[in-house]
Amino acid sequence: MSEPAKLAVIDLGSNSFRLVVFSYAEPDETGRAWWRRTDEIHEAVRIAAGQDEDGTLAEEPTERALETLELYAHFCRATGVEDVRPVATSAIRDAANRGAFLHAARERTGLEVRVLSREEEARYGYLAAVNSTTLADGVALDLGGGSMQLTRVDSRLATDARSWPLGAVRMTERFLPGEKAKGKQVKALRAHVAEQLAEAAWLERGGRLVGVGGTVRNLASAAEIAAELPSYGVQGFSISRAALDELVERLAELDSGDRASVPGIKAARGDLILAGALVVQCVMEAGEFEALEVTEAGLREGVFYETLLGDLDPPLIEDVRRASVLNLASAYGADFAHVDHVARLALELWEALGSAGLHGCDPLERDLLWSAAMLHDIGTAVDYDDHHKHSRYLILSAGLPGFTPRETGLIGQLARYHRKSFPTEKHEEYALLSKHGKRVVNVGAALLRIADGLDRSHCSAVSNIKVKVGNHHVTIKVLARGDAELELWGARRQMELFTKVFDRTVSFEEAG
Amino acid sequence: MSEPAKLAVIDLGSNSFRLVVFSYAEPDETGRAWWRRTDEIHEAVRIAAGQDEDGTLAEEPTERALETLELYAHFCRATGVEDVRPVATSAIRDAANRGAFLHAARERTGLEVRVLSREEEARYGYLAAVNSTTLADGVALDLGGGSMQLTRVDSRLATDARSWPLGAVRMTERFLPGEKAKGKQVKALRAHVAEQLAEAAWLERGGRLVGVGGTVRNLASAAEIAAELPSYGVQGFSISRAALDELVERLAELDSGDRASVPGIKAARGDLILAGALVVQCVMEAGEFEALEVTEAGLREGVFYETLLGDLDPPLIEDVRRASVLNLASAYGADFAHVDHVARLALELWEALGSAGLHGCDPLERDLLWSAAMLHDIGTAVDYDDHHKHSRYLILSAGLPGFTPRETGLIGQLARYHRKSFPTEKHEEYALLSKHGKRVVNVGAALLRIADGLDRSHCSAVSNIKVKVGNHHVTIKVLARGDAELELWGARRQMELFTKVFDRTVSFEEAG
Repeated sequence: MSEPAKLAVIDLGSNSFRLVVFSYAEPDETGRAWWRRTDEIHEAVRIAAGQDEDGTLAEEPTERALETLELYAHFCRATGVEDVRPVATSAIRDAANRGAFLHAARERTGLEVRVLSREEEARYGYLAAVNSTTLADGVALDLGGGSMQLTRVDSRLATDARSWPLGAVRMTERFLPGEKAKGKQVKALRAHVAEQLAEAAWLERGGRLVGVGGTVRNLASAAEIAAELPSYGVQGFSISRAALDELVERLAELDSGDRASVPGIKAARGDLILAGALVVQCVMEAGEFEALEVTEAGLREGVFYETLLGDLDPPLIEDVRRASVLNLASAYGADFAHVDHVARLALELWEALGSAGLHGCDPLERDLLWSAAMLHDIGTAVDYDDHHKHSRYLILSAGLPGFTPRETGLIGQLARYHRKSFPTEKHEEYALLSKHGKRVVNVGAALLRIADGLDRSHCSAVSNIKVKVGNHHVTIKVLARGDAELELWGARRQMELFTKVFDRTVSFEEAG
Repeated sequence: MSEPAKLAVIDLGSNSFRLVVFSYAEPDETGRAWWRRTDEIHEAVRIAAGQDEDGTLAEEPTERALETLELYAHFCRATGVEDVRPVATSAIRDAANRGAFLHAARERTGLEVRVLSREEEARYGYLAAVNSTTLADGVALDLGGGSMQLTRVDSRLATDARSWPLGAVRMTERFLPGEKAKGKQVKALRAHVAEQLAEAAWLERGGRLVGVGGTVRNLASAAEIAAELPSYGVQGFSISRAALDELVERLAELDSGDRASVPGIKAARGDLILAGALVVQCVMEAGEFEALEVTEAGLREGVFYETLLGDLDPPLIEDVRRASVLNLASAYGADFAHVDHVARLALELWEALGSAGLHGCDPLERDLLWSAAMLHDIGTAVDYDDHHKHSRYLILSAGLPGFTPRETGLIGQLARYHRKSFPTEKHEEYALLSKHGKRVVNVGAALLRIADGLDRSHCSAVSNIKVKVGNHHVTIKVLARGDAELELWGARRQMELFTKVFDRTVSFEEAG
């Protein structure tokens, strides 16, 4: 791996200013890029506070904003980040005195703040959504403090977009300024949003709805907790319309100061969350979306993706799921020769047992096995002992954009059971899986063990396998380059779970 | 970091053959070495099974042993490990036909098996003990399947050593061959061991007792579970004499086949554990040791330390605790300039508050703060988000030789609370700490936050601090190289926990 490049994105939002540092390596000769967030500073500047009717930024928040920018500029200089991209959205874009603010920012920090047009802001939200989910057809929603952007997506391309001043801060100040949200106020807010949304007829073309932004993340977190689901972040989580309706009802009953008491809602967002939730609800109704899928990526990631994939127009990651898995594998220094090989063998077993009608899994779940095969050993970065458990921890902690939390959980379980104990009801996380989820883990772990055994020496000695599935017995013919004694030994040691899961004995034969 | 070297140690024991691969970098110009286990294969060969009275190895176990060795040799070739050290202990050393075995091993595998003399075996156990614990004066106990070695340690040096054929396999076969252990048999075993131990008068010189080997690890695990302590391995765990007596009583009541039902005792060791526990009990009685401290290192690590520290005689790690911390920090690519600096600032704060009689911690607990300061950011290797929690996970998972489990737990808690939420009774692990443990975490985390804030830019801009402790207020004077605006901002943002813990406000002043 070459020395990573660094990019700082400074997002001058209406609610907060946030600096995020990305470290990344552009695609190498094998096409593998990797990236990760490596630092972050957040200040609740609330630059829009006390903004005039005509949008003039008030003195105190302006000074707070400039001091924060000075600090961020200083941070970038001190930590050697040269590529710094400050971008401003709605509050500054719409400010009557924006010229003065930008001038002061340049004078005091040396930073050239780029004010995003509504179209550009929408575009970054769209890039964040399509590069961190599998959204192909539908709508990307980006709800900020000042504005909301919706982008129509067809075959992953943005085909239409609009921005409205319907952000959570603005809607709160205009419609829900008091402690209590009165029924009449809520009604007025909803009517206003619905009227505005009527301008986007393409909302009704359906498909999936993917949301980005802090409001959406907080709502997902609250819905996830309310559903008593195990939580490792909200990446890929889907809020149903019914769940959102319930959440809105619950929030509307609380005083503004008490809304952060709902688990999942952050303290700094308690006063804004109801207005934000109502706006999202209106979008779901207008487009008749049954669910809102959430991604943790946002405007800042959009700016980052544009840099990482600068050569492409539009800058789209070809296969988001695949890229997520490879990114995580790279981050922990995976032995790609080994894991690529194990993945190939595991998938051959999967196909053979699938053709024989034996595994009972969905063809789409093949991806989960591939992902687990690529990631099964990343836990060795923690410690060799119990590395299967560490792999699970790393997968769940870092997350896998493009997968739902359920899928990420299954990949984690597959990695966890690639060695040592078999899946058992005694293990809480396994016990909580659905019947089908357990089947996926049993089947995948059984195949992964054999595939891993067949590359015990990590040198791809087994060039191919041929699987013959009988009624009581499975024969695996092994074609090897040179001596495969260790691989046969490795596979034989790992065949017990296979025998149990498929109710068939198994034998390995070295082909001439 | 340069490309690591690899060493495989093959331990041909009486109970099992185990191959362990160590990857390591010898000390660099800063004196920092690092190492970790990166692979392991284990086969329960039981070469001593059915051994004759005169010690002739039986045909079947011999063939099993040779096949296993072939496999291991093959593994080393396939994975490119050139430095391979096969060492044999008691069963092979004492075999009448050992020449034939060694010859066959050489012919079939190309490996020159080195038969350790009793003295050499004792020495490696001693090296494992003193290099993975803080043992300075006392006895190192190494209990294997065939033999037991005791080494007298004075000022970390081995001053006397003895080996006896009192291993767990031998004692089981000789005294406890049946399903049930009769009182008479137990008595006979104890009398035999006591008689043998009388030869080592230096046992009575006291000090600490540190144990290595699988029996000892299993006993520690069982005692830890019985005491309902949170378990992240047994490194540094101390079994009291009373706890061992209880465990022996419990095991003696069970049939041989049921002993592995005691949580902590592994299935493959159930039949041997009682004899092993009785031998350990006799040693504790003979030397009047109040506790047995356990280390996870053993013969294999002894061989490895000799390689890593080959220039030193004896090959002793100068400061085991320090080396463990640096090893872990290196493994996760710590930014040493930053963490060294944070550690220094944190310790200055510690001293200042200690002098003022404010922190209420033991001077020895300073080490815990230093360790946490060095390790606080290692979790960023998992993910930037929640990296404080990941740091805790990595510390507990990998373990820290030289520290007790309690201390390792406290270091983990200190890292966990270096940012974001304050320590709270709502967090289970914190709630389970003793009152003093909580104080250590509160104090350490409060200081660590400020020290970390004072190096927010990671470039050691703050060259020194001067702390003035008043009755209601603490003033921290900051001497900086150049501009320290970011560091002051960082520290101010992190002062709230300090204010709470020390019941004093705090201010920062930039010194001219």
